[in-house]
Parts: sequence; structure tokens; C-alpha cells
Amino acid sequence: MSKNSDESNLVLSSRIRLARNIDKVPFPIRIDEEKGKELIKDVENVFYISPEIKEDYITNYLWNLDEVTDNSFLEKHLISPRLINNYKKSAFILNKDQTVSIMLNEEDHIRLQCITAGLNLEEAFKDANKLDDIIEDKLNYAFDENLGYLTACPTNLGTGLRASVMIHLPVLSMSKEITQLYNAVTQIGMTIRGLYGEGSNADGNVYQISNQISLGVTEEEIINNINAVVNQIINQENIAREHLLKNRKYELEDKIFRSLGILKSAVLMNSKECLSLLSNVRMGIEMGIINDISSQTINELFVSLQPATLQLLVNKKLNDKERDLERAKLIREKLK
Amino acid sequence: MSKNSDESNLVLSSRIRLARNIDKVPFPIRIDEEKGKELIKDVENVFYISPEIKEDYITNYLWNLDEVTDNSFLEKHLISPRLINNYKKSAFILNKDQTVSIMLNEEDHIRLQCITAGLNLEEAFKDANKLDDIIEDKLNYAFDENLGYLTACPTNLGTGLRASVMIHLPVLSMSKEITQLYNAVTQIGMTIRGLYGEGSNADGNVYQISNQISLGVTEEEIINNINAVVNQIINQENIAREHLLKNRKYELEDKIFRSLGILKSAVLMNSKECLSLLSNVRMGIEMGIINDISSQTINELFVSLQPATLQLLVNKKLNDKERDLERAKLIREKLK
Repeated sequence: MSKNSDESNLVLSSRIRLARNIDKVPFPIRIDEEKGKELIKDVENVFYISPEIKEDYITNYLWNLDEVTDNSFLEKHLISPRLINNYKKSAFILNKDQTVSIMLNEEDHIRLQCITAGLNLEEAFKDANKLDDIIEDKLNYAFDENLGYLTACPTNLGTGLRASVMIHLPVLSMSKEITQLYNAVTQIGMTIRGLYGEGSNADGNVYQISNQISLGVTEEEIINNINAVVNQIINQENIAREHLLKNRKYELEDKIFRSLGILKSAVLMNSKECLSLLSNVRMGIEMGIINDISSQTINELFVSLQPATLQLLVNKKLNDKERDLERAKLIREKLK
Repeated sequence: MSKNSDESNLVLSSRIRLARNIDKVPFPIRIDEEKGKELIKDVENVFYISPEIKEDYITNYLWNLDEVTDNSFLEKHLISPRLINNYKKSAFILNKDQTVSIMLNEEDHIRLQCITAGLNLEEAFKDANKLDDIIEDKLNYAFDENLGYLTACPTNLGTGLRASVMIHLPVLSMSKEITQLYNAVTQIGMTIRGLYGEGSNADGNVYQISNQISLGVTEEEIINNINAVVNQIINQENIAREHLLKNRKYELEDKIFRSLGILKSAVLMNSKECLSLLSNVRMGIEMGIINDISSQTINELFVSLQPATLQLLVNKKLNDKERDLERAKLIREKLK
């Protein structure tokens, strides 16, 4: 997620996830520890050996990780709560840039994720496809001519593909439009939800839009549909911003610059307030009101100031108050 | 009010006011315009002619001033609402530093005020006394052997002296102690009130403590009593601050630095919020938490950001929102 040069971009990242299972091996829910670890070994063997893999990858075995490390990967969306639940028999293969994460023994045997900066599902899909081919070349996937790829949960049948886009909607969030959006998006078979998935609030006004169904449509159709919807939403958000800028310019600037001022000077800062202030500053950057900070800096803060990641950064266990103190310190340093 | 080098000083200023009337001339309430202007001329004649007057003084005639200018002098405590009410026959003599203001035809013929920085009623009294002598030397004051100086309102009989001290009490203001203080101070014949006199709220946590009675006590006793009470209050405020610093250090620092951060970055700022934030920053300076801003800068902002003074500074009529905009701009420049 490092090369997002377009500061006006409301899309933080695009993500493709493929769900795959090995033929004739029980789904992870029914697999025991020994067989689970065998499956991990099998995937590793075909993956690391391939001449196509030129980047540095490592496997993280969940049974070796502590809770804070688990949660930090979770905060970065590189793993899921279910992978943590299956910790005795689960793992994930991660590249150095943390743009690829292949979860093993999550709900399915293989959950292959590729992430790109900005709105670029095509590139993410291309990357995912390439990695998928490497595995499929040597291992037999569970596949049915009519149903497509077979998955533990029927919602993932077919392409096994979920495409999702993280989008920053601070102005639509303020109004009732966001509720209308929720309804409209759901009606066309998509889901919109907060930063941390199902049931989570949209902290920092970041929403995740993804397809609900992967059966009976092609990969290309899924991606095209998401792109169309996202572009439509970007358009709505931009119209709402222009309206605000025209009618309440000073109030908007006040909100943005105060948020930056508080981030630069606070001594204590909780996670919720932090996300809200960062959202305002990000809006300022996207709208060209703030020019001396990059949206990249804000993206990094968005992630690194989450509780677990923060503790890994300062390398010690922190209670709530200590976290608020360290978080504020880190922001001040980062924004100096 | 320019030479307050002790940054830990909670006292913004000390002020002595003497009420005097010319013998055999009706009190201002009963005087007509012509006689009122004659009286002004009489005082000016003895005042400006004296070899003791070495500083630059000018007379401001209220009938020549516009509303914004009136209100700016009011915001600086150099004149009173009553002087403005009597605008057809009232004036005041002002020195360049604005530490001396001699109101003519306010409630009494002469209301002579001297102001010093910090807690220094003795110096203010010395200055007031000297100027009073100059006038008394040439004009007959209304004086009674038993009642002392005769004044329009009986509360000013006797010495005609009111001593008052402006003191910054942010921590006592937060707690119930301020109510106890109100009661205690009233019981010993003194008054405590907000920055803008009777009935006003203590905006910016600045309180004015003054004597209620001027009859049956000497000038020295009045000043000693106020000093004793003020020192006692300073002590209480400092104890409360130490307690806060010991128990809620980070919360205190957070409040102080956020206030400074907002002042440095806001685009819109109303007067009430401004005073409250400046109070927090002043506390930070007084407690040695902020070291790169002088309390002098804050004192100047306290005054210059009041609505009328602000309009004089930018030299144009401003509506509410324009004032909030100009105020924020001025603060940002001043604190840069």
C-alpha cells in the first residue's frame, strides 16, 4: 500500500480474495491438528519451490504467535479472527510489503489475498491469479463443473472471489446519504461496512465495499460491478464536498485545521478520537486544503495507531492510558 | 501593564480607583451638558498645566467617540458603561501606556484609576495619590470631617478608594472551591466577580477581587486586607494546581497543549472559547509547562481579541462570523 501518489484519491486500497480448497481433504472445521499442519506443509512446498516466486515471503504459524502479534496482523487486515481461532492448525504466507497474505486453514484451506493502493482491483486480481495458478499447477483444487470452486460456505461458491475496496467518505458519513447508500448497495448484491468488517462502526469514516455473491458471475463482472458502484459513490462524496466547500468553507477549514492542530499537540489520544481526527486531516489532503502532509503518512498512522500495532511498535505491553500517551507521542513525532 | 516578568504570577493586574467630587458642583446625575463640559475644562486646566505631569496624556471626549471605540475602551477596563451613558457631558484623561484613566462625570465628577502589572496595589496607590494631589492642590474637593470624601453613592464615602486585583484561577474555577471562596470573601467585606464586573461570568477564569466598603477604614488597611486575601487565594489555587499535577499530570498537560494547538490552528474562534483556551495556555505558562510563550503575549490577546478592540485593530466593522474569522487569524499570527 505504498505507492498512492494521487492525493485526491478517496480509495485507500483495493483487495482481491480467492477462496480455495484442496480436493479430498476435509474443510478446516473438520480437520485435526496433524492433518492441518500437513496441508500447510503441502502448500508451502509447492509455493516456495516455484520459480515464479521472486519476492521474499515468510510463513507465520499461528501456534507460534502471541496475542498482540495476532491482533496487530488483524488490525492490518492481513489475517481474520477465524484464522486466530484455528491457531493450532493455521498459518499465513506473507510477502515483505504485506500486500499478499495467503491464509491457510481459515474457513477454507486457502484464502489468498492481494492488496493494491488506490482503486485498482484489476492489478490485485492479476497478482492473485498468478499466485493461484502456481498452487493450482501442483495441487488439486476441489472444483465442480456446475458450482465452480467448492468452499466451506456456499456464499463463496463459484469464483470464490471477493473483491473489496476501502473508501473514505467523511462528508457522506455526516448526512443521511450514508444510510441510503447502505440500502442501495445491498439491493445490488453488495455489502458496505465499517473498517473492521461486519458489524463494526465506520471508525475514521472508512468503509469497505465488497461483492456478496461469487456464484453465477465471472470474475470480470464482479470487478466491473464494484468499480461502477465505487465510482458512483466517489462522485456522490465529491459532490457533497463541493457543496460543503461552497456553503461552509470556513467551518470546513476550521474543522480540518483544528483536527491537525490537536493531533500535533495532544498528550493523550484514544483510538476512536484519533481515527476521527485523522479522517478530517485526510479529507483536508484529498481536497487540497492541506498540502504539507501526504495521505500516505495518514494511511500509515491509521494502521500503526491501532492498539496492538502500537504496542508492537513501542515494543511493550501497555494499559489503556499508556496507549493513549504513546499514541499521542507517536502522532506528534510523525506529524512534526 | 507591560512589565510583568514573573511568569508564575497568577495576578494579571492591580488597580486603584479614587472617587472625588468638586465642592459646590452638583453630582454628574444632576449636572447639565454645559456645566458638565465646564467641569471637564476645569480639571483639564489644573491637570495639564502641572509640572508634575511629565508623561503624555490626552483627553477623550465621549461625545466625539463612536460606539466601537467606546466599547474597546470598555473592554480594556479604561472606562465604564456609566461614562458612556453620560456621553454628552463626559470624558476621560488617558496616558499613553493606558495605565492611568481619569474619568470625568461618571457617577462622580472624578474617577481616577491607576493600574499596575501583577500584585502591586501599593505602587498603583502611590501613582493615584500623586495625581490626586495635583488636582486637589488647585480644586476644592467635597469633603466632610466625619464622612471623608463625599460621593454620589454612599458605598464610596470615606476614602473613596476601591482597590481591585485581577487574578487567574483556572483550577479553583473547576471545583466547588470557587463557590466557597465567593462566600468567604463576601463575609469579610470584599467582592469577587468575573472579568467584566458585576453580574458577568468569569470568562477566561479571571476574577476581580475588590473592597466593598471604603468608609471607616484607612487606605492602608484596605490595601493590606486585599493583599492578605489575594495571597490566601493564590495559595489555595497553587495547592489545587499541585494536587492536579501530582494526580492528573498527563490530563493537565493534554488540556494545556491541546488548547495551544487549537489556538494556533483554528480558522474560526468565538470570544468565549478564545478566553477559555487562553486561560488554559496561561495556566501552562504560570506552571512552567509552556516555556516558549510569555504571559505578556497572552495578556495582550486577552484584551485585543474582545469584539470591539478586534474591530479597531483590523479597522473595519465586522459581523459575528467575520469577527470569529479575524480573531482566529490574529491569534495564529500572534502565536506563530
